[in-house]
Amino acid sequence: MLISCPDRAGIVAAVSQFLFAQGANIVRSDQHTTDPGGGSFFMRVEFDLPELAARRAEVAGAFSPIAARLEMDWRLALGAPPKRVAVCVSREGHCLNELLWRHQSGELEGDIAMVVSNHDDLRPAVQMHGIPFHHIAVRPGAKAEAEAAQLALLQAGGIDLVVLARYMQILSPAFVDRYPGRIINIHHSFLPAFAGGNPYRQAYERGVKIIGATAHYVTADLDGGPIIEQDVQRVTHRDNAEDMRRVGRQIERTVLARAVAWHLEDRILLHGNRTVVFD
Amino acid sequence: MLISCPDRAGIVAAVSQFLFAQGANIVRSDQHTTDPGGGSFFMRVEFDLPELAARRAEVAGAFSPIAARLEMDWRLALGAPPKRVAVCVSREGHCLNELLWRHQSGELEGDIAMVVSNHDDLRPAVQMHGIPFHHIAVRPGAKAEAEAAQLALLQAGGIDLVVLARYMQILSPAFVDRYPGRIINIHHSFLPAFAGGNPYRQAYERGVKIIGATAHYVTADLDGGPIIEQDVQRVTHRDNAEDMRRVGRQIERTVLARAVAWHLEDRILLHGNRTVVFD
Amino acid sequence: MLISCPDRAGIVAAVSQFLFAQGANIVRSDQHTTDPGGGSFFMRVEFDLPELAARRAEVAGAFSPIAARLEMDWRLALGAPPKRVAVCVSREGHCLNELLWRHQSGELEGDIAMVVSNHDDLRPAVQMHGIPFHHIAVRPGAKAEAEAAQLALLQAGGIDLVVLARYMQILSPAFVDRYPGRIINIHHSFLPAFAGGNPYRQAYERGVKIIGATAHYVTADLDGGPIIEQDVQRVTHRDNAEDMRRVGRQIERTVLARAVAWHLEDRILLHGNRTVVFD
Amino acid sequence: MLISCPDRAGIVAAVSQFLFAQGANIVRSDQHTTDPGGGSFFMRVEFDLPELAARRAEVAGAFSPIAARLEMDWRLALGAPPKRVAVCVSREGHCLNELLWRHQSGELEGDIAMVVSNHDDLRPAVQMHGIPFHHIAVRPGAKAEAEAAQLALLQAGGIDLVVLARYMQILSPAFVDRYPGRIINIHHSFLPAFAGGNPYRQAYERGVKIIGATAHYVTADLDGGPIIEQDVQRVTHRDNAEDMRRVGRQIERTVLARAVAWHLEDRILLHGNRTVVFD
Repeated sequence: MLISCPDRAGIVAAVSQFLFAQGANIVRSDQHTTDPGGGSFFMRVEFDLPELAARRAEVAGAFSPIAARLEMDWRLALGAPPKRVAVCVSREGHCLNELLWRHQSGELEGDIAMVVSNHDDLRPAVQMHGIPFHHIAVRPGAKAEAEAAQLALLQAGGIDLVVLARYMQILSPAFVDRYPGRIINIHHSFLPAFAGGNPYRQAYERGVKIIGATAHYVTADLDGGPIIEQDVQRVTHRDNAEDMRRVGRQIERTVLARAVAWHLEDRILLHGNRTVVFD
Repeated sequence: MLISCPDRAGIVAAVSQFLFAQGANIVRSDQHTTDPGGGSFFMRVEFDLPELAARRAEVAGAFSPIAARLEMDWRLALGAPPKRVAVCVSREGHCLNELLWRHQSGELEGDIAMVVSNHDDLRPAVQMHGIPFHHIAVRPGAKAEAEAAQLALLQAGGIDLVVLARYMQILSPAFVDRYPGRIINIHHSFLPAFAGGNPYRQAYERGVKIIGATAHYVTADLDGGPIIEQDVQRVTHRDNAEDMRRVGRQIERTVLARAVAWHLEDRILLHGNRTVVFD
Repeated sequence: MLISCPDRAGIVAAVSQFLFAQGANIVRSDQHTTDPGGGSFFMRVEFDLPELAARRAEVAGAFSPIAARLEMDWRLALGAPPKRVAVCVSREGHCLNELLWRHQSGELEGDIAMVVSNHDDLRPAVQMHGIPFHHIAVRPGAKAEAEAAQLALLQAGGIDLVVLARYMQILSPAFVDRYPGRIINIHHSFLPAFAGGNPYRQAYERGVKIIGATAHYVTADLDGGPIIEQDVQRVTHRDNAEDMRRVGRQIERTVLARAVAWHLEDRILLHGNRTVVFD
Repeated sequence: MLISCPDRAGIVAAVSQFLFAQGANIVRSDQHTTDPGGGSFFMRVEFDLPELAARRAEVAGAFSPIAARLEMDWRLALGAPPKRVAVCVSREGHCLNELLWRHQSGELEGDIAMVVSNHDDLRPAVQMHGIPFHHIAVRPGAKAEAEAAQLALLQAGGIDLVVLARYMQILSPAFVDRYPGRIINIHHSFLPAFAGGNPYRQAYERGVKIIGATAHYVTADLDGGPIIEQDVQRVTHRDNAEDMRRVGRQIERTVLARAVAWHLEDRILLHGNRTVVFD
């Protein structure tokens, strides 16, 4: 259960009392308040409740008056069935490969239900894993058609999360609106730095000593959506722009895989343009 | 409030309900369970309760039946007055200096009430900060007398926490028993490696690529007490044993300062020979 | 060209003068001396020399008197043809997968010529990459036969480097002697700590805050060979032994991949039980 | 000896041959070329040569024809006497304190000859170390006079390096021109991000997961000078802008101290707007 509401006394008591009365056993509980005097309050409670799937409507109904009284935004995310993930790629496979590997080794909750690409290059690698691969070319001037085809695929597949794993296309605001807080992108730079094209070349020209990557939710504001995770690695004067690109790819795949895992485990709450990531 | 008890349903509800009824506003709450089915449960709740200092006995009395029913080990740690800290040093000042600096810049809760040393070298640096410096020489064969003098000082000073900041003497079990879970040592090695003398020479001989330091509570088992914090830094073949010692000193002061800060903020719970450190 | 010799004045001058006279252009040159007064000297010079492959014997012959005068251990490693690598695995594929991925994406010099395993589990993943997979079961009491079969394969394949990528068998001294300084193992622990079995369980029991992995050359001294690379990652009280194992696997694959890359780029010189790794 | 020149064959041979002929013993030698085919070449050679101080002019004279032939920019930096450092501060003492501590513990070559401040707050801390403290107030509209007074002090003191240790004044281009490549600033942000005022507030608002600091040489281009060193630390949603400022201060003092140490050890070569930092 994920909850956001204005901070006040008694929230934890109300929620934990409710869950106890329902017969739930709390496995994990995290809270965060931006300011004890009048800020926002965030809570994530992970609990075991036998037959929750069957009783979901009943439990939610019983919680509604509490939620209304405390002005909560809330949702009850079930551990099962697993979330269905679509991965969008272009030509570079390093981020996709990392997701496939972690999925295969059981480190990623959720199912990778399909891979969608504007090129056909990565088809064999995907099909090897028994995952459907869809090639939807994006022709100049026909982007709307391509997006319509993608959306149809995503909806037919019952997709919960869209992961842009080095997908070199900018999504239209209309597309983004269909999956609010449910599209994750990997940005090949330590945002907010070098936000434009070819950031490794920019990083090399500027002589930086550390490069990074950023995973964020996609919003209408390009590269400006809520940051989920960042990481960095050292470089030296010996690294040219190509070396930085290579180091950057290692960071990208790690950072994206972490962000996707946390989303699939329902660890992330949105707060304006920031994220609360419970560990 | 810090709580350890066997895990079962209803603990969070009972504690949060109790605090709500007392008029407390929960600022921060963290929990940890080692195993949802029958493990140990740990909880730290930070709350505002007006006039708690005056009402402490009353609040504690009201909580006692709940604690008894749920088989809790618990304590109520007040934010004020600040804890009183004694720092024990020998000749090397880097860890002491870090603590003094963080204290002076307001990054360390608690008061550094005294510095005790078996040498007189660091007296000027300590007195510059207006902190009493006590030189208690430890003569061969007269260690018991020295420890008795130290204990008298610590007790006269109302000391809550003893920090061994590169104090090159081994405390007797009797001394350790007087301050259970309240003596912190910095070990100049990444435990459990190189647990003996001159670890930087050992690390150099072994050709390691990373060195570290470990802050831990002192128990009767030398270097074996519960680990609070560790950190590391890279070294290369260019670093000789002396370079590693220098790098190691930087790690030591950072790691010890973090461990002391967390203890002073009552963030640490002991669990057998392990620590739960709430962030 | 990789050189080890007693340190004295004039080594760099002699080597660089020689290479200049041969018409070589030095691309990269690194040196290291353990002690300017009478220590050991290490040098790695990377240079372009047209037709070196054809002129190798001639160039080596011309250098011999210089090497003899300065008491050098030296070798001339050609960039081409690529070194041939055999990867030994058991059931866990994470380290192998990382090597395959880096090889495929052009980040690893050398050719992965074969994969040898005492189990058949990873055959499909290997054959997907078009790499020969050899299953050599190691039956109790028949280890010598298995090693003989392996050695025959390695020699028939002209193997230059053997990588133990979570290969759960201890090689006999006789096997190790056949590939001195040419077998790399990944140890699932931050050596010298927790050198025995199940290190993640040991790490959890000890309550460490950081875990690591170590890549080292294999010698007759189990887990005691020269360390090539180590890395670490933070864990907390929330991580149980299984979580630590998962984190550990990520470190293992990165650390092993780095060590293998450096070996294949001829960046590593052995110095007793330590390595000099030129960057 | 530090050398920059166009890359070509024979440079290393010429330099090492020259030093050998002069009777020098090379302790350390590092090279870097941006591009083996026609790029820039950088070299740092550290050597022992008895009586070099006395023979400096002679040695330099003998090297001049070689330097001219190979179009070198070069300088011969003597290990002694130590460089003289002036530290400029405002009110915050953390970076200054770190420099004083490292100097006192022998980890910083060079002498801290004076501290100059536009406020009087840090006088006691500086004088405690026996270092002259000069208070030069910067009145609105009278910045030129203040800078003139500072320059007079620096020149009277024979200052080699100016360190801006959280000095909250922008130096005029005329001032900067007097110490080209010899003024180091610590920027309280991971450049190029958040280059304006109050970067920790900006970082908090943007919801970043990592913050950093940057040490760079000061040029006429504010915050745009060659980067010497950067480092970062993780933050979470639990850290508010003030927490980030506190974490940032720890990074600032470490990063600045490293950059100053490397400069004092003559490890840094400038290459356009980038640095080559030999380790």
